[in-house]
Amino acid sequence: MQHNKKSLEAVRHSLSHILAAAILEKYPKIKLGIGPTIEDGFYYDFDFNVSNEKRIKSNKSRIENLGNTQTYSKETRETIDLIEIEKQMRKLIKQNLQFKKESITFAEAKKTFSGQPYKLELIKELAKEKLKSQIKIQNLSIYKSGNFVDLCRGPHVKNTKEINPDAFKLTKIAGAYWKGSEKNPMLTRIYGIAFKNKKELDNYLKLQEEAEKRDHRKLGVELELFLINDEVGQGLPIYLPKGAMLRHNIMMFALNTYLEREYQLVTTPHIGSEKLWTKSGHLQFYKENMYSPLGIEGENYILKPMNCPFHIQVYKQKIRSYRDLPMRLTEMGTVYRYERSGVLHGLTRVRGFTQDDGHIICASNQVKSEIKKALELTIYILTTFGFKNFEINLSVRNPKSKKNYAGSEKKWKMAENALKQALKESGIKKIIKDVGGAVFYGPKIDIKVKDAIGREWQLSTIQFDFNLPDKFEMFYIDEKNKKQTPFMIHRALLGSLDRFMGVYIEHTAGAFPLWLAPIQVAIIPISQKQIDYAQKIFHFLKSENLRVELKDANETLGKRIREGEIQKIPYLLIIGDKEANNKTVNIRHYRRGVEGEINIEGLIKKIKKDITEKAI
Amino acid sequence: MQHNKKSLEAVRHSLSHILAAAILEKYPKIKLGIGPTIEDGFYYDFDFNVSNEKRIKSNKSRIENLGNTQTYSKETRETIDLIEIEKQMRKLIKQNLQFKKESITFAEAKKTFSGQPYKLELIKELAKEKLKSQIKIQNLSIYKSGNFVDLCRGPHVKNTKEINPDAFKLTKIAGAYWKGSEKNPMLTRIYGIAFKNKKELDNYLKLQEEAEKRDHRKLGVELELFLINDEVGQGLPIYLPKGAMLRHNIMMFALNTYLEREYQLVTTPHIGSEKLWTKSGHLQFYKENMYSPLGIEGENYILKPMNCPFHIQVYKQKIRSYRDLPMRLTEMGTVYRYERSGVLHGLTRVRGFTQDDGHIICASNQVKSEIKKALELTIYILTTFGFKNFEINLSVRNPKSKKNYAGSEKKWKMAENALKQALKESGIKKIIKDVGGAVFYGPKIDIKVKDAIGREWQLSTIQFDFNLPDKFEMFYIDEKNKKQTPFMIHRALLGSLDRFMGVYIEHTAGAFPLWLAPIQVAIIPISQKQIDYAQKIFHFLKSENLRVELKDANETLGKRIREGEIQKIPYLLIIGDKEANNKTVNIRHYRRGVEGEINIEGLIKKIKKDITEKAI
Repeated sequence: MQHNKKSLEAVRHSLSHILAAAILEKYPKIKLGIGPTIEDGFYYDFDFNVSNEKRIKSNKSRIENLGNTQTYSKETRETIDLIEIEKQMRKLIKQNLQFKKESITFAEAKKTFSGQPYKLELIKELAKEKLKSQIKIQNLSIYKSGNFVDLCRGPHVKNTKEINPDAFKLTKIAGAYWKGSEKNPMLTRIYGIAFKNKKELDNYLKLQEEAEKRDHRKLGVELELFLINDEVGQGLPIYLPKGAMLRHNIMMFALNTYLEREYQLVTTPHIGSEKLWTKSGHLQFYKENMYSPLGIEGENYILKPMNCPFHIQVYKQKIRSYRDLPMRLTEMGTVYRYERSGVLHGLTRVRGFTQDDGHIICASNQVKSEIKKALELTIYILTTFGFKNFEINLSVRNPKSKKNYAGSEKKWKMAENALKQALKESGIKKIIKDVGGAVFYGPKIDIKVKDAIGREWQLSTIQFDFNLPDKFEMFYIDEKNKKQTPFMIHRALLGSLDRFMGVYIEHTAGAFPLWLAPIQVAIIPISQKQIDYAQKIFHFLKSENLRVELKDANETLGKRIREGEIQKIPYLLIIGDKEANNKTVNIRHYRRGVEGEINIEGLIKKIKKDITEKAI
Repeated sequence: MQHNKKSLEAVRHSLSHILAAAILEKYPKIKLGIGPTIEDGFYYDFDFNVSNEKRIKSNKSRIENLGNTQTYSKETRETIDLIEIEKQMRKLIKQNLQFKKESITFAEAKKTFSGQPYKLELIKELAKEKLKSQIKIQNLSIYKSGNFVDLCRGPHVKNTKEINPDAFKLTKIAGAYWKGSEKNPMLTRIYGIAFKNKKELDNYLKLQEEAEKRDHRKLGVELELFLINDEVGQGLPIYLPKGAMLRHNIMMFALNTYLEREYQLVTTPHIGSEKLWTKSGHLQFYKENMYSPLGIEGENYILKPMNCPFHIQVYKQKIRSYRDLPMRLTEMGTVYRYERSGVLHGLTRVRGFTQDDGHIICASNQVKSEIKKALELTIYILTTFGFKNFEINLSVRNPKSKKNYAGSEKKWKMAENALKQALKESGIKKIIKDVGGAVFYGPKIDIKVKDAIGREWQLSTIQFDFNLPDKFEMFYIDEKNKKQTPFMIHRALLGSLDRFMGVYIEHTAGAFPLWLAPIQVAIIPISQKQIDYAQKIFHFLKSENLRVELKDANETLGKRIREGEIQKIPYLLIIGDKEANNKTVNIRHYRRGVEGEINIEGLIKKIKKDITEKAI
């Protein structure tokens, strides 16, 4: 049984009705909420809090508490046996039930759903809307399948024959407030997933399992990389020594690469006067992403959500000539952007993050080559970190609503063409064009990467800006001694260092390559006897600027090796009597396994090679 | 004629009266403000804004407008001839006038100063104070010298014979509000300096001239190191590419040195929840230095004035054992502290700055050796930057007010002894003990440096903290499996990177050593003919990771060399036909002068040696 995307949507939607039907059979007095489809599946909300029947057998292994939805109400915390419900759903599916759409009046609807207060509330709201909108909503649509009836717009499958009974699964239960408001009752939400076939379901489950193992929040704790707590504030990560070292290594690689490529370093403050944000237009267009101001001697200052206005100050420090262009400014700039606590997620969604930011200010005849250079640099940076699959998105104007964009027709045409040409000349074949995806201030290229388990992450962005050069009256003196407005290109290649770290931890599952690893080498003497020799090796490797740890002989050898493996340290150097006598070490590499005995000269050569080649 | 410090104070104070007397002789209707002594001299405030006599001949070269005192009132902007006034003062001094103290009643005082509204205001205030304080201020003291009389507590010289007429000078005129409030009239302040003898006066003037040349605010503009403007906000420096590179080099040297010395890097956010600052005690003890909070979802967050509470979170990430100690955490942490706009000064007094911060958490038996290590590290760091003269200050408790300090008697004794012992064992001979100079949370060592022209700057600090370990309930498990409170030592060796940069720019007069210079080498081909060869050298030096600039042949050779010298670039490489043919360059070193022709191999060797040795 195969489905296209649209019919899979119908299958998922129909499964939510089947779920509700199955629950109703078991708990006839239950009150129904809503049951929509979501990414990969569906859910249905129920209010069990109505009779004694609410006390249901538990199946604790399948219960999960969602981070931001509070705990269940006490009554429904007793749990539901999802496997039993699944069985019941399969029974219903096998009855080849038809999904029949009917149109009924508001009066009929009230009667049909008389025992269902949440449905009645929805009907009441629809009636209100009908009055307000003055559109002719004469009737409401319902769907019937077997004994079950629901207020619903569809679409659904025609018959449960279309549903593969082996390609769905109920996944978890969580509490969720009716209509998402904590003023309303807490309902019990049952989630399910559904796919074309069992293979896809299994793949999905495997991916989920793999993703859970790689969850950077979990690895962040296990590998002692970072912590986030309430005392400091949510969305404000504190990097522990190992995480800070990893972050530093990533940052220094990016920074040094940019400096080699003729970027100039600048350093700017974290707050700026309201005057600046007014002039830049941020207070007009970006206010909802900015934090509330703090006052200093009667003037308001705001945490910077972007570095651009500061970089423009650097440009404007003196009168620029065409000889100064292209000017490429870079900063590892920490910005603060408002996020609701509900959407915060480890390092990938935070309230303060550091961009590997850069602004290229150039003349029109430099635009294409600068875009090409930025693209090439992006691919180089991402490839160095081991990402191989990229998706290039080109976001241009919606040609039907040209009035919504800043900058002249001529500039837009030039910029969009420059982007297209640059992509073409860079040999990039597959480009996903997003018409209308441009920001108001200019067209852009976004680069997504696929991680080790196939998930996509948007990291890099290269954006034109026609807005700020105008607002700040930026200019340069051209060859003919005339004032010209320069072009400005924003670019962040890792994007946010913090988000990048989150993605990178998941991509590598925390097994960082030697050049980045916070601890590169662990020395493990088999017993106390080799401790002197181990210490010599330790100090020697440190003098070679390596990040080394000596795991002393207080624990068993097995435990120390296991510890090194759990920490995912690239090189474990085991030292026994033989190695101490031979002046060697025995390499156990995290990825390559046991590599055996090697003398110190050979070891250093091997390690340095891995570092220079940035071997994965 | 020699004076001790106390009598020099009397001379300066007496000179302020002589100044007022001289002014009064020339402008009899003038109104007098006050005339105290200040560091190195004295001033007197006058209100010229009373009659037509206020229009005074100008002597513009001696007029200066103080940064934060606004402009003169229009009437007094016409300027006073300071040289003429000085002459008049010398005449008065040579009359061997006596300074006679008299005690008069409030009623008599009102009569004596009847034509002087500012003096009358002061008399009125003193009368009020008398009522409030209920102390028996029966009379007021005045000083008479010749025809001049002033309301004054003294002390003064007995006779103007004691004043060396060649050892003083009037230096500048500035506007100053009466009592420093902008609600009051703007008065004209005349400043003077006075010393023991002419030699000291001349030395002082020479130093002032030298200091002006080295002013980092002036050099900051000339060398394009940083800018501060109103659009972004006062006290918030933006580092231009050269300044940012210099700062980066300084920072990386400090950071890498700390990492080599077994410090662990951490990275923490710039804002923290009010909860954190309440727990740490900052909101109780440090609030006036903190900025107003910003709100996120009903919770207040504050820009961090210190990094300590964040570093404590790192320590508390898990249960620590004695094996984890000493734990040395470091961060280049940017903190924000409230400063009034009036006291802001270039980079040395700003609103946001980056500390080369570190916290050492250790057991009591590690305290002394950790202090010694920190001291040794401080001296190493400062010496590397070319500072040779240090002043070590040991600040201990005031034993008479033990109640004002946090931490037990036992801890204070131990800590003060540890500091003393560490200083002694480090071979530091001259220690300035500051009894009562300790902060409430612990004793400390401050290190001041003398710069190239003999001025003292406080940079480094090593401080005990008995407060935070208690507030955050920090502990570790000792050898006997018992909970112990660790000791915590704050240390910042450069102090504030930004302030350090300000001091360092003045110390070096902007001529940075090769290892730090933003531009290390400038290549200057004599004419267009050598451009290809010059470019080859340029790319070769860049590939050797040097910061190089190619000064192309559009300008005259002389102009380009001068430009290189104004920019204080360590190595200028001149390339003529001879050098191009011989595959050499001709070195002109900023400090060492012309060093002549050298082949490229020799050049690289020379340069690398300077860098490795961190040659000044």
